Amino acid sequence: MERGLLIVVSGASGTGKGTVCRKILSDAQNMYYSISATTRPARVGETDGVEYFFVSVEEFQQWLAEGKFLEHAEVYGNFYGTPRHKIEERLNHGEDVLLEIDTQGALSVMEKCPDGVYIFLLPPSLEELQARIKNRGTESPETFARRFQSATNEIEIGKKYQYVVVNDSVDAAAEKILAIISAERCRVSRNKQIFEKLVKER
Amino acid sequence: MERGLLIVVSGASGTGKGTVCRKILSDAQNMYYSISATTRPARVGETDGVEYFFVSVEEFQQWLAEGKFLEHAEVYGNFYGTPRHKIEERLNHGEDVLLEIDTQGALSVMEKCPDGVYIFLLPPSLEELQARIKNRGTESPETFARRFQSATNEIEIGKKYQYVVVNDSVDAAAEKILAIISAERCRVSRNKQIFEKLVKER
Repeated sequence: MERGLLIVVSGASGTGKGTVCRKILSDAQNMYYSISATTRPARVGETDGVEYFFVSVEEFQQWLAEGKFLEHAEVYGNFYGTPRHKIEERLNHGEDVLLEIDTQGALSVMEKCPDGVYIFLLPPSLEELQARIKNRGTESPETFARRFQSATNEIEIGKKYQYVVVNDSVDAAAEKILAIISAERCRVSRNKQIFEKLVKER
Repeated sequence: MERGLLIVVSGASGTGKGTVCRKILSDAQNMYYSISATTRPARVGETDGVEYFFVSVEEFQQWLAEGKFLEHAEVYGNFYGTPRHKIEERLNHGEDVLLEIDTQGALSVMEKCPDGVYIFLLPPSLEELQARIKNRGTESPETFARRFQSATNEIEIGKKYQYVVVNDSVDAAAEKILAIISAERCRVSRNKQIFEKLVKER
């Protein structure tokens, strides 16, 4: 059984990670979306076990103590964590796993999973980023200012990734990420068994 | 002007490099096919300046002395060379350049152009490879035996490439290579200017 690919899509707040990932999931085959656990309250329209596992701070601490997280981080006073066992299970069964995650989390996963595929999503411009964060409309003016400042700072972190995709259109960005996934499956380092098979035929 | 990508498609004799490259060229945009110079006689249906520049041994030696080749090699008693200036010109004008080349030549180019994209084409099986070399029908039994032996030995060289694509169907192989090209355009190392642009907007 060929192991699946761990695909990490990350980027600053407001770059549209969620929308792009939904498009990828609707187009890709055999792909599991890693659901994070969080202590932040569910937004209107969000469902437990779909966008996130919404857990209490106590539950989160217990999962953490049990080593159930591949990474965890505190962002704007809330905890976020990536359940490790779910991901490993799917990868071992040959499924690709899509992990949509903030930049702090992605850097932690990068250390633990060097064979993952790390994709950084960028906004087309800072003006556009500002508009997107404002349009979300869930922030107080203070939270907005802090989030925008943090988002612009985070852009530099993208240089540590393997790939960068500008999200000027959701369809085009998703298409580029699907091409990256297809290309990564062709890496020689992931296909040693093909050479072995041909050599055995001699 | 963004520099184009040098895409090197290589593989043992009989793996179908030519057919796959023609499919890529018909589907890709803004791509120049690098035409090699060779001293081997033209086959039926081949035209000078289309498949190859067919040159005499004397001409070849002169081009070589003038430093006009990115690489050159002798294969089965004939000389082959890749004209360097044509490739550089197109890359600098933002065109991608597709270079279809034997494994000896590819290894030389790899040293000189480390930012190229190196793709190794494999036959689906050795049985299929044997059939393809036989079907070509241009070989004597001795040449066939030598070519098949050499082709199986060459497979090991593929491990030095970045990507491997199994040519079980021309359309699927070409599609994978187009995905690789699209993915390589998204590499962070090729997109430093995007980060600079966003940082300047601050």
